[in-house]
Amino acid sequence: MPTRSYIIYDADQPQAVSDLTHFDQRSTGQTLAGGDDWSIDFRKLRGGTSEGVEVVDLCSGPLTVSVLPTRGMGLWRGSIQDEWIGWDSPVWRPVHPQFVNLAARNGLGWLDGFNELLCRCGLSFNGPPGIDEGAKSPIESQLTLHGLIANKPAHSLEVTIDDAGEGRVAVTGVIDEATVFGPQLRLTSTVSVIPGRQEIEIEDTIENLAGSEAELELLYHINVGRPFLGAGSRLCAPVGEIAPRDGRAAEGIDEWDTYLGPTTGYSEQAYFMDLRNNPDRETSVLLANAAGDRGFRVRWSAATLPCFTVWKCTQDEADGYVTGLEPGTNYPNFKSFERDQGRVRRLSPGGGSYTTSISIGICTTTAAVDAERAAIAAIAGDKSPVIHTVPTHPYSPV
Amino acid sequence: MPTRSYIIYDADQPQAVSDLTHFDQRSTGQTLAGGDDWSIDFRKLRGGTSEGVEVVDLCSGPLTVSVLPTRGMGLWRGSIQDEWIGWDSPVWRPVHPQFVNLAARNGLGWLDGFNELLCRCGLSFNGPPGIDEGAKSPIESQLTLHGLIANKPAHSLEVTIDDAGEGRVAVTGVIDEATVFGPQLRLTSTVSVIPGRQEIEIEDTIENLAGSEAELELLYHINVGRPFLGAGSRLCAPVGEIAPRDGRAAEGIDEWDTYLGPTTGYSEQAYFMDLRNNPDRETSVLLANAAGDRGFRVRWSAATLPCFTVWKCTQDEADGYVTGLEPGTNYPNFKSFERDQGRVRRLSPGGGSYTTSISIGICTTTAAVDAERAAIAAIAGDKSPVIHTVPTHPYSPV
Amino acid sequence: MPTRSYIIYDADQPQAVSDLTHFDQRSTGQTLAGGDDWSIDFRKLRGGTSEGVEVVDLCSGPLTVSVLPTRGMGLWRGSIQDEWIGWDSPVWRPVHPQFVNLAARNGLGWLDGFNELLCRCGLSFNGPPGIDEGAKSPIESQLTLHGLIANKPAHSLEVTIDDAGEGRVAVTGVIDEATVFGPQLRLTSTVSVIPGRQEIEIEDTIENLAGSEAELELLYHINVGRPFLGAGSRLCAPVGEIAPRDGRAAEGIDEWDTYLGPTTGYSEQAYFMDLRNNPDRETSVLLANAAGDRGFRVRWSAATLPCFTVWKCTQDEADGYVTGLEPGTNYPNFKSFERDQGRVRRLSPGGGSYTTSISIGICTTTAAVDAERAAIAAIAGDKSPVIHTVPTHPYSPV
Repeated sequence: MPTRSYIIYDADQPQAVSDLTHFDQRSTGQTLAGGDDWSIDFRKLRGGTSEGVEVVDLCSGPLTVSVLPTRGMGLWRGSIQDEWIGWDSPVWRPVHPQFVNLAARNGLGWLDGFNELLCRCGLSFNGPPGIDEGAKSPIESQLTLHGLIANKPAHSLEVTIDDAGEGRVAVTGVIDEATVFGPQLRLTSTVSVIPGRQEIEIEDTIENLAGSEAELELLYHINVGRPFLGAGSRLCAPVGEIAPRDGRAAEGIDEWDTYLGPTTGYSEQAYFMDLRNNPDRETSVLLANAAGDRGFRVRWSAATLPCFTVWKCTQDEADGYVTGLEPGTNYPNFKSFERDQGRVRRLSPGGGSYTTSISIGICTTTAAVDAERAAIAAIAGDKSPVIHTVPTHPYSPV
Repeated sequence: MPTRSYIIYDADQPQAVSDLTHFDQRSTGQTLAGGDDWSIDFRKLRGGTSEGVEVVDLCSGPLTVSVLPTRGMGLWRGSIQDEWIGWDSPVWRPVHPQFVNLAARNGLGWLDGFNELLCRCGLSFNGPPGIDEGAKSPIESQLTLHGLIANKPAHSLEVTIDDAGEGRVAVTGVIDEATVFGPQLRLTSTVSVIPGRQEIEIEDTIENLAGSEAELELLYHINVGRPFLGAGSRLCAPVGEIAPRDGRAAEGIDEWDTYLGPTTGYSEQAYFMDLRNNPDRETSVLLANAAGDRGFRVRWSAATLPCFTVWKCTQDEADGYVTGLEPGTNYPNFKSFERDQGRVRRLSPGGGSYTTSISIGICTTTAAVDAERAAIAAIAGDKSPVIHTVPTHPYSPV
Repeated sequence: MPTRSYIIYDADQPQAVSDLTHFDQRSTGQTLAGGDDWSIDFRKLRGGTSEGVEVVDLCSGPLTVSVLPTRGMGLWRGSIQDEWIGWDSPVWRPVHPQFVNLAARNGLGWLDGFNELLCRCGLSFNGPPGIDEGAKSPIESQLTLHGLIANKPAHSLEVTIDDAGEGRVAVTGVIDEATVFGPQLRLTSTVSVIPGRQEIEIEDTIENLAGSEAELELLYHINVGRPFLGAGSRLCAPVGEIAPRDGRAAEGIDEWDTYLGPTTGYSEQAYFMDLRNNPDRETSVLLANAAGDRGFRVRWSAATLPCFTVWKCTQDEADGYVTGLEPGTNYPNFKSFERDQGRVRRLSPGGGSYTTSISIGICTTTAAVDAERAAIAAIAGDKSPVIHTVPTHPYSPV
């Protein structure tokens, strides 16, 4: 049976909506070579600030990941066997954008909804809040932390079951970040799993629908806690060059790749990196636990996501014990600085587009962890990384 | 059969709600002299920032117009035969107010939801954002672009089928713009069509429910694109006096009544006018296409809407190719300037009210266009208009 | 039959939800000694800014009170026999938080939703808006009027029917006021009535879920209008010490305990008090009408709510004729001043908690009013109160 698609909703073609909200081998009649344990469920949350939040649970068999169309197609969290993939944020549940005022808290209101395994920072801007003096107009100059896209809902949502190869089950959402006299950026995001595999793939395309050139900043804030993060966990990355974001990060530069356990009073540290990549322009990092039998691997297209930031936030469990692995078009500095460094992308008018792809793989054996380490070592090669011990231009403003 | 009314919802009398959501000759048993092709439909949009937006489609037979109770009883768009009435905003779909932060974008957040054929700017204030030093208190002084009413939902919605004369099918919404220690303004808006006719009527009453005098600013932002707007389209208006808003508008004063096609890099121009009116204190303007076989006519009560603004925005199609025909109590300058010119209305305490009426007529033949032109010429009379070639007091601050 | 509980919703255990939305003797099989006229109803409002607001109507038989889980477990209003308990705010209906921008109106946006009989001001802060220079970080420093909790929805809601003694019917809601890198306060609020009685009980516990100490400010804004408030109504309170908030309040210090009828142009007056309390650390106040046959009594735990504020707002009926009886952890001054006076509570990390209890009793006979007056007189004792005629430190900044 060929590829089948089902529209969950589409603001532009309401009549085309499917009746199904549970998709599996039985309800779709689709048999996939990778196995028949896959499923997709569409549901809505109830209660508190989660009221009305939509969730799509994509299950490959061994792995399930929950996508949030209401929150910019972010990944809420996943599970594998009996273990969670994600982190325990003080914000316990997915927050409907109606309850997030991005301009509140001195422009840090974004934190009121921050709890995902993966959320996008962008599309017009990311980084800290402030007034961007280099913006085209007042419509674009008032920046709030990490931009708008994580609090925008999809206006169209479609499930696809593709039987090519081992098969693939996917959900695609489309989100507009658009205003009059300002940016008109469209994100089309597909999140998919292959039956039987412990892997999540994200493929995003951003289009500029406006009649003039548009700016793009896009960073994937991928946030990981236990069981991958713990005392003695280690980050394996094919570093070409690394610099601490600020003085606080410089204090820990010698231990940039290892992690503390939950530490009362710990203050966050961030490192900016230029990673090496393979001939296909892909690169990869791995967070492995101390025992070396759990690994969280991220692989992505370095050609379109050349900047990599590591956010270490090994504070008390109660406050959110977490690390961020963050591939981006840019480093999460204030937009005007990134523009000056040439790290703000420009999309041409009338459909200029930008495509990124990210794969998250979960290792649950020592062998799998070792294989990922070997792959990263192959990318890294023999050359020593350049390690800056203090904040360094052009990574940070100094 | 006499006039029949159906309550779609009423926050104050939930038990009185009708079961019907589709109204026509068959479902209501109401036969109207103008014809039996009329209908009214109530529906809710799904997906993205349109989730939960209510729409009432009023159909006269030849013409359909979609009213948005959720967005201040604005008119989303219409259709006649196979042509759209409205414009293509970069904001593609009706936006639920929960997704509009009016204070965002330096007070220009209103633009995030701006795509209607008709939306109201008001009720307490309209015009650009800023701090109104002349406001009664801090509760009223922080002004955002074009006020609150376009992002307020109706708390009561009623359909009426009136069989007097040719008949009339109408929807009435009631919206409160009220706060504690501040303005308490109530808008009761009725939008109606007459079976068989190509016309939309809007009748609005604003009441002051407070114990003290209230200020009122109200402007109808009526926005038109193709097929009425195009290269060589012409605006016919019974101008008594006209002044450009600013230097940019002054550049085009000689061509104030003609339009360019979509023009890359075009920057908006606005003209403020004092129009002549007929003995009934009505006035009328017409936007006709170059061929003269499509016309968009607006007629209104000049006694209560004495100020007329034309907004020319013939930018790229992708960015919103549009012109605004804007009858108002005032010109859309900053409120304190309008107050100083005596153009902010004052409603007396305890029910002081203000009523406006507007009719939009659609011409689809050369003969209909010519007839509207003739009617406007009759209002204009023989006296030449006064044309200011530079921004002029009291139209603009100079 | 023992105590029975029903989950209306719980974001954390969606599968445990009960089917019931109407609870009474018949639907639950629960017979209570106090009488069988009790009931609990769960419903959702429709229309305007009330769309989606949840209401729980708790009925004791003689008295009904409507709780608003969507608005911080506030009490919307009550009724007894044919009389309302509450006040007529210019904001007519319960407002869904999605329509309240707390930062709007120069930080006074809270007033756009203010119409309850009882709403909480807190939890991290209350009082006027401004920048709190003493805050831990920018995440906590931008204060808006009266804090966040009144516009936060419950994420779990449970009905309990307890047959101990005369019986008790209760609703419990849980609300998180939490963000990343900021406060994590959880309110668990139970509102209950005893069958046959004219009394409402509120028991609240606030927990600090964070890994570090948290600040708490909590004030109960209990707002009363007719029939309890009217010309010649009198407030009976066991005053130890009283001070006017400001110069405006000082003008009326001699009449602090009596009320005017609706008065055009009246400007609000507030008084800060230290009340005496009984050996159980309870205190009590009574608002009685001029005839002395209607009384609104509030009794509370003075140990945890030591500060009492009276807000006199006897303005025009149209603008909201009301008085506020406001037990709190603090006086509603700007937070930094309250902190300096030691009136901001500190909760210890990892579950430090704070419990308050309030009872509202409704008197509908002269005898009942007299009995409450006598009880208050007993608390007051013989010692004369200290009456400050001008704003006085440490009640107000002077």
